[in-house]
Amino acid sequence: MSLPADSALLTDLYQLTMLQGYFAQGMNETAVFELFVRKLPGEPEPKRNFLIVAGLEQALDFLEGLQFQPDEIEWLRSTGRFAAEFLDALAGLRFAGDVDAMPEGTVFFPGEPILRVTASLPEAQLVETRLINLLHFQSLIASKAARMVLAAPGKPLVDFGLRRAHGAEAGLFSARAAYLAGFSGSSNVLAGQRWNLPLYGTLAHSFIQAHDDEFTAFEHFACAHPGELVLLIDTYDTEAAAEKLIPLAARLAAKGIGIQGVRIDSGNLADHARKVRNILDRGGLGQVSIFASGSIDEHLLAQHTAEAAPIDGYGIGTRMDTSSDAPYLDCAYKLQEYAGIPRRKCSEGKATWPGRKQVYRHYDSEGKMQWDVLTLASDEQAGDPLLCPVMRRGRRLGPNQSLETIRARVLDQLGCLPWRLRALSPCAAYPVEVAVSLKRLIQTMESGRMPK
Amino acid sequence: MSLPADSALLTDLYQLTMLQGYFAQGMNETAVFELFVRKLPGEPEPKRNFLIVAGLEQALDFLEGLQFQPDEIEWLRSTGRFAAEFLDALAGLRFAGDVDAMPEGTVFFPGEPILRVTASLPEAQLVETRLINLLHFQSLIASKAARMVLAAPGKPLVDFGLRRAHGAEAGLFSARAAYLAGFSGSSNVLAGQRWNLPLYGTLAHSFIQAHDDEFTAFEHFACAHPGELVLLIDTYDTEAAAEKLIPLAARLAAKGIGIQGVRIDSGNLADHARKVRNILDRGGLGQVSIFASGSIDEHLLAQHTAEAAPIDGYGIGTRMDTSSDAPYLDCAYKLQEYAGIPRRKCSEGKATWPGRKQVYRHYDSEGKMQWDVLTLASDEQAGDPLLCPVMRRGRRLGPNQSLETIRARVLDQLGCLPWRLRALSPCAAYPVEVAVSLKRLIQTMESGRMPK
Repeated sequence: MSLPADSALLTDLYQLTMLQGYFAQGMNETAVFELFVRKLPGEPEPKRNFLIVAGLEQALDFLEGLQFQPDEIEWLRSTGRFAAEFLDALAGLRFAGDVDAMPEGTVFFPGEPILRVTASLPEAQLVETRLINLLHFQSLIASKAARMVLAAPGKPLVDFGLRRAHGAEAGLFSARAAYLAGFSGSSNVLAGQRWNLPLYGTLAHSFIQAHDDEFTAFEHFACAHPGELVLLIDTYDTEAAAEKLIPLAARLAAKGIGIQGVRIDSGNLADHARKVRNILDRGGLGQVSIFASGSIDEHLLAQHTAEAAPIDGYGIGTRMDTSSDAPYLDCAYKLQEYAGIPRRKCSEGKATWPGRKQVYRHYDSEGKMQWDVLTLASDEQAGDPLLCPVMRRGRRLGPNQSLETIRARVLDQLGCLPWRLRALSPCAAYPVEVAVSLKRLIQTMESGRMPK
Repeated sequence: MSLPADSALLTDLYQLTMLQGYFAQGMNETAVFELFVRKLPGEPEPKRNFLIVAGLEQALDFLEGLQFQPDEIEWLRSTGRFAAEFLDALAGLRFAGDVDAMPEGTVFFPGEPILRVTASLPEAQLVETRLINLLHFQSLIASKAARMVLAAPGKPLVDFGLRRAHGAEAGLFSARAAYLAGFSGSSNVLAGQRWNLPLYGTLAHSFIQAHDDEFTAFEHFACAHPGELVLLIDTYDTEAAAEKLIPLAARLAAKGIGIQGVRIDSGNLADHARKVRNILDRGGLGQVSIFASGSIDEHLLAQHTAEAAPIDGYGIGTRMDTSSDAPYLDCAYKLQEYAGIPRRKCSEGKATWPGRKQVYRHYDSEGKMQWDVLTLASDEQAGDPLLCPVMRRGRRLGPNQSLETIRARVLDQLGCLPWRLRALSPCAAYPVEVAVSLKRLIQTMESGRMPK
């Protein structure tokens, strides 16, 4: 199945019904929507201390390419839900608005807009569903993967999660987001092709099982992959397999093949790694590294780091690709201004800050992030503004940032995090202050001098 | 971005490196792999009492269409990882094997194969990653959605989850899997187009906010959507908005427009629904139904059912589309036989049952499922066999089952579940017995008369 992920029909029905309503009323004035996360995920205590923006490149691709194809318009017509004149207008709709956003790789916090769309109301409305879908998922994964990177300093981590990611796109975007967050690469070949990510892979148990004995399987695999040889040693008995590597290494050396590493995928990984390390070292294979996989999350990584388990790298799948302990962010895309007038939703527990906004970040003398200020875009402040212009009149302002640039930004940002935020356990929230100008706007609106 | 979800490169690198190893050794004999779930998700207590098969149609589509395109072969060549003769062979590879599977909508339990692939070793190996990716996700979602259906008997449930689903494909497959499990439809327009799912949608807060007052917004929306009018009433003050519907209904009636329902999306949904129900009933709007959305899961549905909250239907998003309390299943695809010899992986905690297998289901006199038996396919037993032939020599044995057929099967299967399994809380596990023939095979293998 080829997936029309760029189809304009990849949206909620209500976007189209609302557009028909706007069309009927001629409501085409400029709207400002902002995308933000309401709170850190996890109940009762947050399971994240910070979040990382990712997915902007795909969001801009989507906006630049947005249009309904003739057969899609015909299909919409066939549903009988829409007026002919509206569908004619819809066929001509393109996104010609402006976008300001935090660059990918930026650390952000609840309440802070990470993307602001300024466009005619129908355009800005229509893009809601897919914009959230794109920015939510990669930000979710980058935020999860960054915790793993922090928990295993200096250890290469590789994305192994495609099989249990939620579909094809999730597998691809997980590979990208994890790489941005500091992973070394992925097993996902298509992601490797698309973004030139470093690809990693060893072999599966089935390769061993398909042979009548393990030693022969190792030898066959080695001869087929003399270049970067990592052998999976837990199919039957991990330590027994490690012992077999000593005679194997000698045989392979005669052919000019070296064993680079082993992978352990079951049992107590740290215990097995210690035993295997001993066996290998005693056998003169001190240069063979140990790679571990299987149900790994940041807590296990931190435990291995604390006990100095002799594991040199990790393959990480499901718990990263699904962000399994917090598989969604409470994010929203809300109208903040229409026709020059600030707007505010007041629903219980979901009230929003009105107006078009900016976030300023302050650092201490050691370069650590100290606090952010949320304010109106018109209220220029000290500190570093986080939202930057990225699209004007429907066109990007420059080429995409390279993955390496974004990856370096994440590394830099993680270095600027206050120590308590780098820990895996929940901590005192990072301060995001609301500026006086924004509070005054709310007061003005509540006093009834503005529509609600 | 168009997503090449049917690309043969959507796989783990190690599948290709193993295939190169098989190619080098001429290992082309018949392999049997089975796909199964190791245990119910959730720690320490399971969060599911049963699982439901979904995604088989997409799995068969994938197998039928599998082939490397010339540009993909060229790209693989450019990586320098693969031998030229191997890539030539890979270019000609098609899936020409057999598949037996449980029909979509079948209830299943840990340890039971839901799909068995019998094909030459390279073909059967190569398809692992995407087969798991496809069957895992839809089965995950169908299993979650079925709990919601059981928790809200007789209430229409609608998938609203696209925005926070993990990418485009997750949003599409969630809509399909939820419909199979008994949901009434989805807000996802592309899913509606693709599978002819019933589409639902109301309006967002932004539509209300873009107007200078709520009453005018309601009226504008009503005039644009006279057919199926559901109004969102919690943008500012839910009960105040409900009061406005009484004069609005009178004005709309003059134009021949009726209000079908209201949607509440915030606060204590049951409390608001009771208040709104009173307001509407007192105002002569007894026929207007109440629809609720926002952070809904099966536990809240059960609570509403228990307290008879006056809510007539639900929009359910994130917690269904991400299966948020258990966002993955511990599923695997393992080699069980090669070249006529049963194979077994013995890794700690991950040992498998060898050989090609079948599952037989037994019912009590009231038609409730009583126990299953896991045995060798050659060991014919009493009871209903669950795995059926669906593909031979790479071709489907018949047309896809219609979604309505699968949906009816789920309904029927849920009716056959023992009462304790229908509950949301964990219960005594459903018995899956291992037949004597299978235990004997393990003994034979352990006694060393078979390879390991």
